[in-house]
Amino acid sequence: MLTLADKFSALDTEHAPGQETRQDTGDLHAILRGEPLDGTPVDFSHGDVDAFPPTPGALEAWNAGYARGAEQAYTEYRGAAPIRERVAERLGAFTGQPIDADRELIITPGTQGALFLALGATVAAGTRVAVVEPDYFANRKLVKFFGGDVVPIPLRYLGAPQENGPDLDRLETAFASGTSVFVFSTPNNPTGFVCSASHIATIASLAAAHGVTLIVDQLYARMLYRGESYTHLCAGATQPEHVVTIMGPSKTESLSGFRLGVAFGTASIIDRMERLQAIVTLRAAGYNQAALDTWFAEPTGWMETRIRAHEAIRDDLLAVFRAAGFPVATPQAGSYVFPQLPSLAVTPSAFVKLLRLQAGVTVTPGTEFAPDAYASIRLNFSQDHAAAVAAAQRIVAMVERYRA
Amino acid sequence: MLTLADKFSALDTEHAPGQETRQDTGDLHAILRGEPLDGTPVDFSHGDVDAFPPTPGALEAWNAGYARGAEQAYTEYRGAAPIRERVAERLGAFTGQPIDADRELIITPGTQGALFLALGATVAAGTRVAVVEPDYFANRKLVKFFGGDVVPIPLRYLGAPQENGPDLDRLETAFASGTSVFVFSTPNNPTGFVCSASHIATIASLAAAHGVTLIVDQLYARMLYRGESYTHLCAGATQPEHVVTIMGPSKTESLSGFRLGVAFGTASIIDRMERLQAIVTLRAAGYNQAALDTWFAEPTGWMETRIRAHEAIRDDLLAVFRAAGFPVATPQAGSYVFPQLPSLAVTPSAFVKLLRLQAGVTVTPGTEFAPDAYASIRLNFSQDHAAAVAAAQRIVAMVERYRA
Repeated sequence: MLTLADKFSALDTEHAPGQETRQDTGDLHAILRGEPLDGTPVDFSHGDVDAFPPTPGALEAWNAGYARGAEQAYTEYRGAAPIRERVAERLGAFTGQPIDADRELIITPGTQGALFLALGATVAAGTRVAVVEPDYFANRKLVKFFGGDVVPIPLRYLGAPQENGPDLDRLETAFASGTSVFVFSTPNNPTGFVCSASHIATIASLAAAHGVTLIVDQLYARMLYRGESYTHLCAGATQPEHVVTIMGPSKTESLSGFRLGVAFGTASIIDRMERLQAIVTLRAAGYNQAALDTWFAEPTGWMETRIRAHEAIRDDLLAVFRAAGFPVATPQAGSYVFPQLPSLAVTPSAFVKLLRLQAGVTVTPGTEFAPDAYASIRLNFSQDHAAAVAAAQRIVAMVERYRA
Repeated sequence: MLTLADKFSALDTEHAPGQETRQDTGDLHAILRGEPLDGTPVDFSHGDVDAFPPTPGALEAWNAGYARGAEQAYTEYRGAAPIRERVAERLGAFTGQPIDADRELIITPGTQGALFLALGATVAAGTRVAVVEPDYFANRKLVKFFGGDVVPIPLRYLGAPQENGPDLDRLETAFASGTSVFVFSTPNNPTGFVCSASHIATIASLAAAHGVTLIVDQLYARMLYRGESYTHLCAGATQPEHVVTIMGPSKTESLSGFRLGVAFGTASIIDRMERLQAIVTLRAAGYNQAALDTWFAEPTGWMETRIRAHEAIRDDLLAVFRAAGFPVATPQAGSYVFPQLPSLAVTPSAFVKLLRLQAGVTVTPGTEFAPDAYASIRLNFSQDHAAAVAAAQRIVAMVERYRA
């Protein structure tokens, strides 16, 4: 049994994305090399909604929600019924699997809220939960907070496309030996890896065979680059008894400031998630829910333009890092790159702080995503294009400066 | 050790305020007496923000926050630093106890979010938590969800003013025998009882003597009626080592649709709350945080007018219930009344559903607030004045109809 002190030690946020302003950098001055590097500061810890603004109409939708008054301020805990109906319809069309808006979908405060509720609904003390490494930093923390045991599943992502993927042998062994929940993101955060149709079919079959609950984080499923294809687990021929899919408009659509997400799937889990939401935040902010009406209803061509703009930044950043010799996978989807840096004369944690201090570049250390990913850094490249490329060049310059 | 099924059974939301539309009322037809009662439907389960609209300027503040873009969309998990500074200044002035905005305050998704984080930061399996009965319905559920044990502390609220209050002997016994956390609301939800200066001093002293953490929910502290006085525990001469105070603009200020709350107090607990917030919702919705700038900055006279309007509704509802012979305490603050109904021929749960079905009146059963409060119902009287009085008269008529 973990003590509260242990639990909160596992929840350390010093290096969490967005918390960098709380870091103490006073101890870095003894190891400084060289002068500050000029350039527009870039915070790669999250996307820049000034560079890629929220979906057209989101502002107006919020104001219309506010104007509706009481009915929008106080919704069911799982979200306003008419909004759930419209979102369920669109997500059903997107995934290819119809969703019952009354029983199978909940609106949450961000996809973070959805992940929290989904794991809270399925993980208790001693629950064994398979977690991909690397994967979204909160997954491991959530499992630990609820008292579960993390069963790591390595993800291969730097090989040839046909060699990449989660280690399905390890997954099968885990499922066969008491693991009862599997949480994973596809597209993967931080690598941009997308599970193939074959991976998804195998995962679904194994989960069905062993009675494992699947929690599939599809936050970046819409930002799919040219030549890639996406497979929705929830629409496959084989369905495990318990599947929850998580999505939201915080990333591609830049609505993070609204804190909106959805989870859809097995009604009994959605019901538990609503009970938990009742004591966590009651509901996603009422007026904000109205912005979901812009989701999957963007102006014609808007999404295509947004994806192409990200693809161009992706390609330029990959060129910068590859020219410097850093191993880096080509993200198939999403706006993260996860390059590996060479050996440095300072600790990875110090280097990340030095990047902020000397180069005006904020990145997230790889160890937030996997315990052994100390050589990697994550960049969210949903940024001003020119500023992002210049910042990537400063990262390379800083690596040269601090090479072991 | 509770199983997940047990945990979620304790989180049942069938009778939770705002969830009534999900109830199945099909089985009531066999016990119906009489015809429907005409009148404007009133939902007393929460305040009506159409009758009492949000603080002037909240809408504009939200839009200004949205216009600020990235800096407002992504804040520190504990909330935007400039907003925390302004709120800390005003809450310090309100309570009489200065607050360090950097270390001692966190912005949360509603006061519900603050309560969740505060109990999550202090309660683990086996933690004994003193909980007042009756008190806010989520308190007991939160303790159980985190694996703690509820130690009930009866609140006397129907006696003469000098006799009312939490049972301080029971509290001392609990503190002396291993209870390590005490969570309570003052003004009390659902009774409107306000702890006196003497109660507060005793609670603080007992907590200091026994090393008990205090979590004080002051959500309704601003809506104080004529002749009443309020004591802020956090500003007292005796301070326990760990105190967290919770407030928010959801009630008196009608900003519930924004999901905003704050907790302030012991820095080490606020730090844990932020770590937990990082995996629960990341932060209160960024743009929404901007509306906190209207809080404690309302136009001159606005708050006084709002309080007087509620006081007038309170007095009329008390008159209706007292004329019918229902015991009911005079709320000293807040917008709840908690009358006791006489014995009925139907179960309390059925009666509450019948009220909705036949009289268009939604109330919350007393058992949401204390296990033995089956005879009581809670009404949030922040409603259209005339509609509320007429609805109270329909409650009386329905009681006559279903009397045992």
